[in-house]
Amino acid sequence: MNSPLTDALPVAQPPGEHPFDQALHLAAQPDGGMQAHTHASYWNMVGPYGGVTAAQMLQAVLTHPQLLGDPISLTVNYAGPVQEGPIAMQAMPLRTNRSTQHWWVTMSQPDAQGHPQVCTTATVITAVRRDTFSLDDIAAPAMPDPNTCERFDTTGAMAWLQRYDMRVVQGALPTLWDDSGKDSITQLWVRDNPPRPLDFAALAALCDVFFPRVWLRRARHVPAGTVGMTVYFHASREQLARQGEQHLLAQASAQAFRNGYFDQTAQLWDSEGELLATSHQVVYYKE
Amino acid sequence: MNSPLTDALPVAQPPGEHPFDQALHLAAQPDGGMQAHTHASYWNMVGPYGGVTAAQMLQAVLTHPQLLGDPISLTVNYAGPVQEGPIAMQAMPLRTNRSTQHWWVTMSQPDAQGHPQVCTTATVITAVRRDTFSLDDIAAPAMPDPNTCERFDTTGAMAWLQRYDMRVVQGALPTLWDDSGKDSITQLWVRDNPPRPLDFAALAALCDVFFPRVWLRRARHVPAGTVGMTVYFHASREQLARQGEQHLLAQASAQAFRNGYFDQTAQLWDSEGELLATSHQVVYYKE
Repeated sequence: MNSPLTDALPVAQPPGEHPFDQALHLAAQPDGGMQAHTHASYWNMVGPYGGVTAAQMLQAVLTHPQLLGDPISLTVNYAGPVQEGPIAMQAMPLRTNRSTQHWWVTMSQPDAQGHPQVCTTATVITAVRRDTFSLDDIAAPAMPDPNTCERFDTTGAMAWLQRYDMRVVQGALPTLWDDSGKDSITQLWVRDNPPRPLDFAALAALCDVFFPRVWLRRARHVPAGTVGMTVYFHASREQLARQGEQHLLAQASAQAFRNGYFDQTAQLWDSEGELLATSHQVVYYKE
Repeated sequence: MNSPLTDALPVAQPPGEHPFDQALHLAAQPDGGMQAHTHASYWNMVGPYGGVTAAQMLQAVLTHPQLLGDPISLTVNYAGPVQEGPIAMQAMPLRTNRSTQHWWVTMSQPDAQGHPQVCTTATVITAVRRDTFSLDDIAAPAMPDPNTCERFDTTGAMAWLQRYDMRVVQGALPTLWDDSGKDSITQLWVRDNPPRPLDFAALAALCDVFFPRVWLRRARHVPAGTVGMTVYFHASREQLARQGEQHLLAQASAQAFRNGYFDQTAQLWDSEGELLATSHQVVYYKE
């Protein structure tokens, strides 16, 4: 294990509160919406880490007074840049059935003329779940104990990377950008840093933790960014509680790179090898 | 090859027009929306085939005067039943960037009190695509020539099944519902029936052509229905034109069955083994 990470927290936040919980603070607004805020501890190169944006979109539903059940599906579309500062959010239950609910969520910020402009959209499906026939139909990969794996050194890295404890087993970020890439699969152990008990919002954020597959497949560093991400939640609250602060087993690979966009398919298992979530992305790349 | 299918087309439609094109007719409305209509030739058990609903959602974007580019991503959420009859649709470009566009699409029908009620929602991402580094990172399965494969007999089947020419190579619908299922993978050749040149809307519809994975995995017939589906479009117009009316190679499997919902991951290749689309679903099952 290397690089103990000791980021200073933003001064305006309650001391001791986890930065992820700080990022999930949504303040109710008079128009029925909520106000979120970008968080310095989850800053990416030119905007917030997409995973924390996804978590905020989900949190707007999970904290809504009309919520029915637990999340089944989240689809986030990253429509435009999110600027540092406050974010206006709306979460609307469009259809409530007996055991399922369909949500529409938006994030907006003022454009150059001060008019609200949509920067992120999401649909969320929630449901009251019941015990049924259940099984995983894909096996978790064999992985060494996370405590025996070297921790990814995030010293000097972008802020959001410092918010995760990552131990890559296969498919690390290339160190030589020499066009020698052969596949697009990454397997790692990952958890929040500092450790934090797993919940649905954190699980959504963790689904975006992988660097762009095109970098790995090509061993070439090209501009790339997620345009849309879907998360299917298999976990129950009980499974999340059992997982607690332990490392998740995470795997991602691409299926196709084509004309500026590639897809990523990902699986996140708990420390016992049971699926927590499966996730998919479509990602822009420049060349 | 068996069961030549000779459905009578609905009388009100122009003779000779393919039923899929009939189903895609969207009539402009004074409020800026469009009116679609359910189509008898794509009827499922208690509503329209979900694939044709997805195609209608996409078509509302593809025929919109403000459209930029070609589809990259489509996520459809099946929020409630679609009743036989007219459907009010709205397609809104929420954000237009230099080369990408983000859309919000809804279908509504009157509730018991005559008020509009959302029954289907979709987000669509479109983009102007450019030539870049491109490759498929998964291989198409080895498959026999479609002309040597037995065609699935849809005599007496639900209407929508008669709209597809399906030749299953692996993972056919169980004939014995005896709880003997061992896996969830299906591989088949499929095209429209009668044959029709492939386009983006037809490709979206084809992504929903698989019967519920839970039936195969368990060899047990339980109530099941798709709640949400995402399609990532890898194909260009040129690839679609090359494919024409030939059979697509389609594959689907589940990753997890859990507490009433399972996920399905699917790939559709062209007749030369190049990916056209990858797709994902979350599907309800009763027990």
